[in-house]
Amino acid sequence: MAKTKHDDTSGDLSLDRLVFFSDAVFAIAITLLVLEIQVPHLHPGQPAVAYWQALIDLIPSLFAFVLSFLVIGRFWMGHHERYAVLDRFDSRLLWPNTLYLMAIAFMPFSTAFLGANLGHFVPALVYNVTMVVLGLLAMWVARTVARVSGKQDPNGYGLDIVLAGLTCVALTWIFAPASQAGMMTVPLWSRLERRFAARRYALSRM
Amino acid sequence: MAKTKHDDTSGDLSLDRLVFFSDAVFAIAITLLVLEIQVPHLHPGQPAVAYWQALIDLIPSLFAFVLSFLVIGRFWMGHHERYAVLDRFDSRLLWPNTLYLMAIAFMPFSTAFLGANLGHFVPALVYNVTMVVLGLLAMWVARTVARVSGKQDPNGYGLDIVLAGLTCVALTWIFAPASQAGMMTVPLWSRLERRFAARRYALSRM
Amino acid sequence: MAKTKHDDTSGDLSLDRLVFFSDAVFAIAITLLVLEIQVPHLHPGQPAVAYWQALIDLIPSLFAFVLSFLVIGRFWMGHHERYAVLDRFDSRLLWPNTLYLMAIAFMPFSTAFLGANLGHFVPALVYNVTMVVLGLLAMWVARTVARVSGKQDPNGYGLDIVLAGLTCVALTWIFAPASQAGMMTVPLWSRLERRFAARRYALSRM
Amino acid sequence: MAKTKHDDTSGDLSLDRLVFFSDAVFAIAITLLVLEIQVPHLHPGQPAVAYWQALIDLIPSLFAFVLSFLVIGRFWMGHHERYAVLDRFDSRLLWPNTLYLMAIAFMPFSTAFLGANLGHFVPALVYNVTMVVLGLLAMWVARTVARVSGKQDPNGYGLDIVLAGLTCVALTWIFAPASQAGMMTVPLWSRLERRFAARRYALSRM
Repeated sequence: MAKTKHDDTSGDLSLDRLVFFSDAVFAIAITLLVLEIQVPHLHPGQPAVAYWQALIDLIPSLFAFVLSFLVIGRFWMGHHERYAVLDRFDSRLLWPNTLYLMAIAFMPFSTAFLGANLGHFVPALVYNVTMVVLGLLAMWVARTVARVSGKQDPNGYGLDIVLAGLTCVALTWIFAPASQAGMMTVPLWSRLERRFAARRYALSRM
Repeated sequence: MAKTKHDDTSGDLSLDRLVFFSDAVFAIAITLLVLEIQVPHLHPGQPAVAYWQALIDLIPSLFAFVLSFLVIGRFWMGHHERYAVLDRFDSRLLWPNTLYLMAIAFMPFSTAFLGANLGHFVPALVYNVTMVVLGLLAMWVARTVARVSGKQDPNGYGLDIVLAGLTCVALTWIFAPASQAGMMTVPLWSRLERRFAARRYALSRM
Repeated sequence: MAKTKHDDTSGDLSLDRLVFFSDAVFAIAITLLVLEIQVPHLHPGQPAVAYWQALIDLIPSLFAFVLSFLVIGRFWMGHHERYAVLDRFDSRLLWPNTLYLMAIAFMPFSTAFLGANLGHFVPALVYNVTMVVLGLLAMWVARTVARVSGKQDPNGYGLDIVLAGLTCVALTWIFAPASQAGMMTVPLWSRLERRFAARRYALSRM
Repeated sequence: MAKTKHDDTSGDLSLDRLVFFSDAVFAIAITLLVLEIQVPHLHPGQPAVAYWQALIDLIPSLFAFVLSFLVIGRFWMGHHERYAVLDRFDSRLLWPNTLYLMAIAFMPFSTAFLGANLGHFVPALVYNVTMVVLGLLAMWVARTVARVSGKQDPNGYGLDIVLAGLTCVALTWIFAPASQAGMMTVPLWSRLERRFAARRYALSRM
């Protein structure tokens, strides 16, 4: 991490540390997900069918692992993209980023609660609300980055993820076991957000 | 991490590794906190109210998670700020930093002990004493950074956190369940410390 | 992490973050393996022989730990080597890399399942299939790196690991307890792959 | 991580990744130690004395946590110091470094086994043998770094740690509960090693 204080084209160590710390929290949260899949210990002498049954019983946990890996991975990509426009550290980033990371670090709990009780209303609701909160905090981070860098994003700040999360929350009341499918509405909301954001961006430039 | 040995404006790899290693320990400690929230496994067929009850039972753990996330996050910000004045690695940093990280790495235990027995005297005392020890070690790190870099800090070295921690310890005897509220006295002590530190700093400059 | 936007010989922060995030996931997955070795708690007053017996009972877990450490370590080396040819970040890397990391993060589960039930058909099969999937995803990453960087690899893209994994899968039906020994056929497949890859590479250069 | 391929004074990304990956494994292993301290869950309504008793029962685990934190911290410092002489990546470092990291990653197990059964012969022996193995692998890494960089170390390659570890192993037969005190003989062996290493170094320079 080169720290060149008087050189505008270089990054600065303070920004590097913030990015680094965030990446580490993302990486740990995403890897801890696997610890929530309970490893079956069978008595020796059991037939193969008992092992297959034990694996089938794990399908909810495996589903939750894959789902949350994709969700956290996607949020990491967003964070990665947002911060790419930053040139230097700004202390106004600290609190939004820390609270956002708190929601990321909470994901292994929501995931385990979902996986252990898949199909039930409450765990599905908790999971979907976590995604909405995560989306809102990501928007706060994105807006702070835009303010700090002075670079507005013509594509918006991630309202699409929040709307998809709210779709999941709404679906929980209709059919909880498949409510996470609401995430598939992201492209729809993205198109909508981009249209409105582009208009607002054009207005702000006039 | 560019390692330019003969160039004073660049950082050095040894400092980068120290900072990196510290960030990783912070990130792991802060993310491990979530593992201490026990995931409820309910029998299928339970009514929604049983799930809500299970979540309500987790409130102490959730409170401890949020509290410690903020505490460790705040300590990370302090570490980040202190090290920003450093230009190069100095081996005198190694032991203070390592012992400080030991206290950070211990936080998941204090947090889990607090969350599992919220409101009790002993866990609250252990938690509050951990914060005082953390504060003292952070001061040791801050003073070492100042000595090594030759840059005194006109705002002091973090005595405010130690005093806030001691306030929590004192409050434990009065009303343990809310003793962590003592942390809210930080701004008070900060103002006090800054005044005294500025005076001492001015004297040292004469 | 110096971020020099207009300098072609320097790396870029976006690539650094991708590499960093991947390294962190590798490091966490490889270190979490140890948590799957259950620590024996004996009653005080037990003779030394009881402790030795407890350790002997752990041999399957220890074997699985060493095996998976070497497997993940070897995959990390491959990832390290592949990415060394990259000069800049390309968003086409994001999804192959994320899915590959999902398989890496899944390894602690496969390892614990193998170690807890060593010698059984189903856990051995799950472990060996995990290795094949890991190998296929690694190939996808390697091909994406080659496409993005415009640098073909004359040694191929890791088909040797996939073939060795398939050998393990085939051996599971013959003798499950030793099926991981199929990994020792890697050098054989490497030689084969290198011969065919060199021919294809020569053809593509004509 | 600036990657300047044609500039000898800069580091290279491949070395950075190796160092980074190692630091992450160190950081995770050192922070996972805390998970081995079992958090007491007491029934509400228990008197304070029950909480104190629960903490007293944890003293062996706390001792093992502090001991291993210092041991891993010290090994990290050694790794940090060794790699500081390196200018560029060399693939000969990969396997010694990976096997060394395997021993580091194994430490949480040895620590938990020691802490759960403190004072017993077998866990003490396992712990002390782990330290000897760690010391030997660290020497292998140190010698590889010296060979690769062409810079011999006039202070030797860490035989002092191995000898101190062997002292612990010998003490296990005399008085297991205090055998780790053998680590305090490090300064003695350091002086001895430095004398012999300096002589050999002088001879090699003639």
